[in-house]
Amino acid sequence: MSETQRTRKFWGWGYEGEGVPDAEVDSIGHDMLARFGVESQGISNPPALGSLDLPDAKLAPPSSLVALCSQDRRERAVHTLGKSYEDLVRGMRGDYRHAPDVVAYPRNEGEVENVLAWCAEVRAAAIPFGGGSSVVRGIEPDVGEEYAGAVSVDLRHLDRVLEVDRDSRSALIQGGVFGPHLEDQLKPLGLTLRHFPQSFEMSTLGGWIATRSGGHYATLFTHIDEFVEGVRAITPKGVYETRRLPGSGAGPDPARMLIGSEGTLGVITQAWMRLQDRPRFRASAPFEFEDFEDAVSAARALAQSGLWPANCRLLDQREALFSGAGDGTRSLLIVTFESADHPLDAWFARAAEICTGSGGTSPIELSGTSTAADAAHRGAAGAWRNAFIAGGHRHDAFVRLGLIMETFETAITWDRFPRFHAAVLSATEAAVRRACGRGVVSCRFAYLYPDGPAPYYTVLAQARPGAELEQWAEIKTAASEALIAAGGTITHHHAVGRYHRPWYDTERPPLFAEAYRAARGVLDPEGIMNPGVLVNQ
Amino acid sequence: MSETQRTRKFWGWGYEGEGVPDAEVDSIGHDMLARFGVESQGISNPPALGSLDLPDAKLAPPSSLVALCSQDRRERAVHTLGKSYEDLVRGMRGDYRHAPDVVAYPRNEGEVENVLAWCAEVRAAAIPFGGGSSVVRGIEPDVGEEYAGAVSVDLRHLDRVLEVDRDSRSALIQGGVFGPHLEDQLKPLGLTLRHFPQSFEMSTLGGWIATRSGGHYATLFTHIDEFVEGVRAITPKGVYETRRLPGSGAGPDPARMLIGSEGTLGVITQAWMRLQDRPRFRASAPFEFEDFEDAVSAARALAQSGLWPANCRLLDQREALFSGAGDGTRSLLIVTFESADHPLDAWFARAAEICTGSGGTSPIELSGTSTAADAAHRGAAGAWRNAFIAGGHRHDAFVRLGLIMETFETAITWDRFPRFHAAVLSATEAAVRRACGRGVVSCRFAYLYPDGPAPYYTVLAQARPGAELEQWAEIKTAASEALIAAGGTITHHHAVGRYHRPWYDTERPPLFAEAYRAARGVLDPEGIMNPGVLVNQ
Repeated sequence: MSETQRTRKFWGWGYEGEGVPDAEVDSIGHDMLARFGVESQGISNPPALGSLDLPDAKLAPPSSLVALCSQDRRERAVHTLGKSYEDLVRGMRGDYRHAPDVVAYPRNEGEVENVLAWCAEVRAAAIPFGGGSSVVRGIEPDVGEEYAGAVSVDLRHLDRVLEVDRDSRSALIQGGVFGPHLEDQLKPLGLTLRHFPQSFEMSTLGGWIATRSGGHYATLFTHIDEFVEGVRAITPKGVYETRRLPGSGAGPDPARMLIGSEGTLGVITQAWMRLQDRPRFRASAPFEFEDFEDAVSAARALAQSGLWPANCRLLDQREALFSGAGDGTRSLLIVTFESADHPLDAWFARAAEICTGSGGTSPIELSGTSTAADAAHRGAAGAWRNAFIAGGHRHDAFVRLGLIMETFETAITWDRFPRFHAAVLSATEAAVRRACGRGVVSCRFAYLYPDGPAPYYTVLAQARPGAELEQWAEIKTAASEALIAAGGTITHHHAVGRYHRPWYDTERPPLFAEAYRAARGVLDPEGIMNPGVLVNQ
Repeated sequence: MSETQRTRKFWGWGYEGEGVPDAEVDSIGHDMLARFGVESQGISNPPALGSLDLPDAKLAPPSSLVALCSQDRRERAVHTLGKSYEDLVRGMRGDYRHAPDVVAYPRNEGEVENVLAWCAEVRAAAIPFGGGSSVVRGIEPDVGEEYAGAVSVDLRHLDRVLEVDRDSRSALIQGGVFGPHLEDQLKPLGLTLRHFPQSFEMSTLGGWIATRSGGHYATLFTHIDEFVEGVRAITPKGVYETRRLPGSGAGPDPARMLIGSEGTLGVITQAWMRLQDRPRFRASAPFEFEDFEDAVSAARALAQSGLWPANCRLLDQREALFSGAGDGTRSLLIVTFESADHPLDAWFARAAEICTGSGGTSPIELSGTSTAADAAHRGAAGAWRNAFIAGGHRHDAFVRLGLIMETFETAITWDRFPRFHAAVLSATEAAVRRACGRGVVSCRFAYLYPDGPAPYYTVLAQARPGAELEQWAEIKTAASEALIAAGGTITHHHAVGRYHRPWYDTERPPLFAEAYRAARGVLDPEGIMNPGVLVNQ
């Protein structure tokens, strides 16, 4: 079903009528107490729409745009906050002070141009909005007083696959299409983009490209970047469109300037995307390790083997316990191969050899290639996968319980990982103790490269009612400072937005920031595009 | 042996004392007459150094830089021309009118800074120079009268591997290191960059990064881009250094702004590069096809199979004949797998199945994985490989024979390939007939992507003494216009330089050019870096 046919929640994940039932929320609370000693505050409910602290709109659309704009209270609220822990807490408190003045729903590129032209004319900030799943305040219209107002530009109507090229396995796809609706359109052709970030249900192609989203594949093609064959954006200065090519060496890649631009250069309206044939063969198993270090060694060997597993996720013992995929005594490495072309016995056999050679044991009997459609959904791998997909709703549940639960993610080379991990873990755990008393920090590898992993940390901690934001800020700051100091990146796939700016400003080359600001000045001379994100005006 | 210890030729490929012996040049001439009906003009020899048309230097280095600069006639000549057909013909005519006024050989980054500072001060153009193998006039100091002169900045002294990280299989490597000297330094560690462009012997890491060079792997990691973990350049505004990371999603990738910048932003002095373990297992075979279309189908199926062969080069029947790998009746697809980790029987068996399923037959008995070190050097695959490596010297031989011989390369998606190929071939063949009367145009696939090939065309044609440059210009223009009109790129891996500007200017988004020019204005406010390349000042 397309995004336009259901009612979005203004607080929390997904659509009205969805979410974790109260009984289950309660049981999550009991589990967390039993497993990690953190106590819930009982279940809160989000505020009523009428009670939100939502400022009066400072701006109204001109008559030429009225038909495609809304100033409805719900719509403004839906377009105010992303889905981070901080966002959810602020939303729970009814703090919608950064609501956009106007939400625009352009139905085509011409209307996108018109909206941007109006914004430039009245000096309103324009915030491109896909699924609103940002966890870095990337879509929050917190633009400052120097703007006449803020317009959230919701791309939901640009939701079609426009053209499919079966020979090249590519399609021209509009930027506002949500994950499920995109896959629905490709499925009858036997094709799939196979880009499944955790936000899959509530995020869009344009958003994935704008934020360098991380997808399905744990190795090889990790970011959406690799699947972009050509991209088209509407900037305040006009159309920016790269040629559709399988590869080129003609100057710095012009697509790479848009990929990761987080709405600061323009609105990504469509892209030619590289697709996959739907896999027919699968081979998968979890491997358990007594020692995390052995699991890391196995992960490294797999990443460097040239086998390129589709999935290869390492969960430390706490992460396995937290997600319900283990009992907390062992680390878990889930290895999955998939192919549309060939059985995978040789690939899988060698991967199993690597895992067992590093001390791993598989709790299931290893078998060869399966052609069963549900092969990816079984056992410990399946348990973890289900928890992953339900992540957005579960996150809401933790906030309703008054527990601090949030993740952060990074990447680092293998040689530095042991010291890096120890430093990040100890800084984060110390901050949890200081700020919260009780809590737990777990780690998984979200993606693996031959030269290093992308560690993903989950923090669960005891909140004090009313002090949650300060508590979490102390933890987040400690973790971010530690990971930047130890050589990591402030984000492997969550993006920079407004939230990560202090650390991003340390990470990126100063001359790059200056050069990017100049480039942006050409495409967006009035400085209206998503101000505050990535760089200052 | 390092580049500093031998004398570079000022005309042609490689070092003094090397090259194709006259008897062999003569025999190439006879072969070409027999195979393609083109007649040589007898063997010419390059002009003597003393007879070159080389202008007086307009500029002299300041006393602080004298020790690291040369104005020697030979050195200025060595740094004047690249290695394209056009360059070789101009060189043969003694046309060295664009010689740099000064050649600088900085020994460290501080000296690079000093050279650039001096250039900015006197408004001289600074041309980063690696191996001088450009075929797109990327290193030719043709900078126009508005500059006080031109300084070729030769990085040959920055030739060391500074640090190796065995765990991550990465190394910090200086930009001026030549291919063989780089591999010599890695070999004792069991590591290899495995980046083998045809220019390997006479090109440098910094040059590869600056030009988005295409390397060893026919699939998956085709360009040098994928191997850059972190990069550092000296710009006129200071150091531009990206963080060493296996992956990141923090804004547009700052490394990608330098990769492909062709010396227009600064001098690439070092990079952390992703390496490979030296392969132990190989499986390889050539497959012959009666019909080129069947070979194309097999190549496409292989590219989309997820098998990721290291080599997968398709030669049409004329290319096979031209390179001596076939008799001109059949197309040839050479498929090679290699691994440091595992035997390749399953990979190779499936690839062979794909090839034979498309009508291919192998002229050799198919065997499984070989661990022999020379496995890549045998049979038809070996013949083609040897011709490839000797390409630079052979190119010289064709020019000495007075034959037009040159290549051009591009990329296109699979769906458009048949019409694209027909259009490019017919436009180029028509131009060959118009300009030369006799000649041949052949095609190979240099690289394969799931969404399309990178076709590489070779032109051999009859030259008229004294008219060669006009003849070739007519052919090049016809080919370039056809491939741009049919949706291709003006270069998959030869770069843009000064030569490809007219077509590049059509290909890249106009707003990208404006944005890039603004970014460049920040890093190089005086506009001294390789002016005329990629964009105007």
